[in-house]
Amino acid sequence: MEQKKEGKTLTDVQLTRDTRNIPIGKVGVKDVSYPIVVMDKNKKFQNTIARINMYVDLPHHFKGTHMSRFVEILNKYREDIALDKLEVILSTMKEKLGASNAHLEMEFPYFVEKKAPVSKAKSLMEYTCTFSASLSDHFDFVLTIKVPVTSLCPCSKELSSYGAHNQRSIMTVQVRYSEFIWIEDLIDLIEECGSSPVYSLLKREDEKFVTERAYENPRFVEDMVREATVRLLSMENITWFSVEAENFESIHKHSAYAAIERKKG
Amino acid sequence: MEQKKEGKTLTDVQLTRDTRNIPIGKVGVKDVSYPIVVMDKNKKFQNTIARINMYVDLPHHFKGTHMSRFVEILNKYREDIALDKLEVILSTMKEKLGASNAHLEMEFPYFVEKKAPVSKAKSLMEYTCTFSASLSDHFDFVLTIKVPVTSLCPCSKELSSYGAHNQRSIMTVQVRYSEFIWIEDLIDLIEECGSSPVYSLLKREDEKFVTERAYENPRFVEDMVREATVRLLSMENITWFSVEAENFESIHKHSAYAAIERKKG
Amino acid sequence: MEQKKEGKTLTDVQLTRDTRNIPIGKVGVKDVSYPIVVMDKNKKFQNTIARINMYVDLPHHFKGTHMSRFVEILNKYREDIALDKLEVILSTMKEKLGASNAHLEMEFPYFVEKKAPVSKAKSLMEYTCTFSASLSDHFDFVLTIKVPVTSLCPCSKELSSYGAHNQRSIMTVQVRYSEFIWIEDLIDLIEECGSSPVYSLLKREDEKFVTERAYENPRFVEDMVREATVRLLSMENITWFSVEAENFESIHKHSAYAAIERKKG
Amino acid sequence: MEQKKEGKTLTDVQLTRDTRNIPIGKVGVKDVSYPIVVMDKNKKFQNTIARINMYVDLPHHFKGTHMSRFVEILNKYREDIALDKLEVILSTMKEKLGASNAHLEMEFPYFVEKKAPVSKAKSLMEYTCTFSASLSDHFDFVLTIKVPVTSLCPCSKELSSYGAHNQRSIMTVQVRYSEFIWIEDLIDLIEECGSSPVYSLLKREDEKFVTERAYENPRFVEDMVREATVRLLSMENITWFSVEAENFESIHKHSAYAAIERKKG
Repeated sequence: MEQKKEGKTLTDVQLTRDTRNIPIGKVGVKDVSYPIVVMDKNKKFQNTIARINMYVDLPHHFKGTHMSRFVEILNKYREDIALDKLEVILSTMKEKLGASNAHLEMEFPYFVEKKAPVSKAKSLMEYTCTFSASLSDHFDFVLTIKVPVTSLCPCSKELSSYGAHNQRSIMTVQVRYSEFIWIEDLIDLIEECGSSPVYSLLKREDEKFVTERAYENPRFVEDMVREATVRLLSMENITWFSVEAENFESIHKHSAYAAIERKKG
Repeated sequence: MEQKKEGKTLTDVQLTRDTRNIPIGKVGVKDVSYPIVVMDKNKKFQNTIARINMYVDLPHHFKGTHMSRFVEILNKYREDIALDKLEVILSTMKEKLGASNAHLEMEFPYFVEKKAPVSKAKSLMEYTCTFSASLSDHFDFVLTIKVPVTSLCPCSKELSSYGAHNQRSIMTVQVRYSEFIWIEDLIDLIEECGSSPVYSLLKREDEKFVTERAYENPRFVEDMVREATVRLLSMENITWFSVEAENFESIHKHSAYAAIERKKG
Repeated sequence: MEQKKEGKTLTDVQLTRDTRNIPIGKVGVKDVSYPIVVMDKNKKFQNTIARINMYVDLPHHFKGTHMSRFVEILNKYREDIALDKLEVILSTMKEKLGASNAHLEMEFPYFVEKKAPVSKAKSLMEYTCTFSASLSDHFDFVLTIKVPVTSLCPCSKELSSYGAHNQRSIMTVQVRYSEFIWIEDLIDLIEECGSSPVYSLLKREDEKFVTERAYENPRFVEDMVREATVRLLSMENITWFSVEAENFESIHKHSAYAAIERKKG
Repeated sequence: MEQKKEGKTLTDVQLTRDTRNIPIGKVGVKDVSYPIVVMDKNKKFQNTIARINMYVDLPHHFKGTHMSRFVEILNKYREDIALDKLEVILSTMKEKLGASNAHLEMEFPYFVEKKAPVSKAKSLMEYTCTFSASLSDHFDFVLTIKVPVTSLCPCSKELSSYGAHNQRSIMTVQVRYSEFIWIEDLIDLIEECGSSPVYSLLKREDEKFVTERAYENPRFVEDMVREATVRLLSMENITWFSVEAENFESIHKHSAYAAIERKKG
């Protein structure tokens, strides 16, 4: 055994024959943290850092896949993660790994410049996005965005002589579409569904404004997913969506939660 | 408005009519942390602490659900979370919340006493379990268990003159079954699928044993899910399963990952 | 080398002499998850699950410590983690590991039964507690408790024609004391410092009550740590404390934070 | 009260007098996620994303600080976070917030291009860095870097006829210095202290190399912090340091841990 290892050839164990007769649905690398460049509606490009999973299927007769090739492919394409490149990346994965299916998931923070509602003071807001793309016979793509909003409880407002409990909420929207949609536009749509958007920077006049707007616009967690559903149903190019809202209740230690999923057509 | 609030009746805002015509798939409470008592194969009962989600569906004509009722139901049943009680809890949820579907998810640490392989020194090992139960027209139950194991890389062993990289891995198994299965038995099955089980307490003689056992028993992440698949396929009472393995690679900062899902019959 | 390993003696590598002349401040096991039993003011005992760190110092001349002994000690004492036992555990650690300092940290969820303010409906609230104990020449003990509360912004209330933004906050109190203090009593003290306590279960009449109480009782993050400081300064048996408040702002994606630390006498 | 709010002046509640006579050590914003630009030894600049805390002290007579000013300052300086700018940022915080102490903490992923040891294949490795800077009468700066490495257990190697358990470890080094040190140089120093560095991309010949290097170079968690200590003591411009190592044990579900802290001079 020693001798072999001293020699020039390093056996490719992964290629040896597997006899258990069990194909594997997904195999690859998970939680690779890597800097990437994504398209930005306003600035053309945005530098960000993604947590990436890359998987392929493995036929029953191979013992293993070649893990290093995933990172090589990532290295090659990371500076230009446009949506129209995802299919190329997946094609490359299928080819280099001899697979019939390939999956790519990239979760990354995405920043959008936002103006405070009254003072117009500018700051950057962080949204968490995920690209989930697969290629078998056909290409499938799901865009996920997590959008923080303020929610103010209609029941608390109605019951109470003054005030109403409110809190930070996270709305998670996932869409499949027939025509390209900007991340920025989907964020705008979702931010209308809570009691108020949230901001990184608010001056005193803005704080008055958002407080009053939220009070005028109470929303249950149920209302938030319904408002999103109304808007997503009206967008013809969206073919499937899922929307969730989670309220980190200010009066409880747990969350209130609601979810709707719809396939159109 | 003030007057009403001073009076005796507090409007039930949740019951008001919603006109958007949108039913909600899931609404309820999320991440409620609560002490529960579950069945234990050896000790009869085990005290643990669960992170709990409880959801129902909401018809299109109601504005909201009644969040406090979920916690009341949890309060009532928490001291006896046997598997045969889950259907009762879900039934109660449907009834108290006027729903046609109910969902219950409980994730909790579960401890099993384990003997070191040579010294027989006893210690407790923690496994993370989840009960996911739903009741619509029929009852559905998925048991999930996360089992840590050691994995030793066959490729690294084959290539190297001495040694082989190895690491902690987490195997996640999910099953649907036709006849009751003990958590403990499923753990035993999964622990055979890595290069070695892991332990909380190992004396010197045990450390020698597990090191050599892992070296004698190299397993790719692909092998681990295949070994589990072979075993799960042979159990007749399992009707569906999914198995994942994640290796926290000692030579990388990312993980290697594999997954297989199978519906039987 | 092989021969030695086949023989009866397994060398104690940890005891071999280290020549780098560098003593180690802390060495041991980290993130051991273990079920423990702690004292409870109302129920006498409470079963919970702790994340445990156990460290000792290591003199410059030893190569390593004996990791398995930490878990053996934990095994022995875990069913009776009364505060008056911590010194015994630390003594045992010093003795069994030949050390001059020993450190024990246990973080665990702790549940207290709480009544809703109007309906008096009972439910359990989770608080995160940590015992941090050290023994060198003398014994040192720090009790840490994380208490969720509601905070309502005085500035938002003052500026706005109606409503006020509010959110869930976490207050973290740490104390050293000369005389035993119940976890429950420290929780009560801290819950007075926000705009309102939070609860697991609130009926409609309770929701009205806590909403109005918070609105009547606005508190900046600064007020919350000052209110705690006033109360902690007045308790004679507390010799040192630190208090932090973090507001998960409903109008931002980030937190507001304040902290005060005081040594008395 | 309504009238006031309709008028032109929005009261500055934060400036109102506090009578509790309690100064606050730290108050500000926590967990602001923001894109920043930091210096890079090889590429001059690097885009990254930081989790940022900014605090000042608050004299006893003021009710509150002005939270929005922290984000305004961050906005102004974020594109040029050179180490020589930190003092300017802290100065601005002191001035704009009328404080005598200012604190700035920024944690961010930092990527370094690394070559595989044999194939020389290039890839990016992620390290987590933190800048912790304070300004009172004097400026204080602590640089923290988390470096993943492989550790191979000397005891397991010695006891076992073949193989040795090994795992991913995280070494955390913190330094104060008198002269500027590059992040890259500190990473190099720390990567020598484990059994082998880790990489994002390893070809077969590299895997053989790192496996054998780790086996030839066994290190206890104690050895790792001692090796770092030897190196850090020999660097004259380092005035204080702390080093920790955590091994995510492949044979346990918990970690082994060691820590050393030293003030020089």
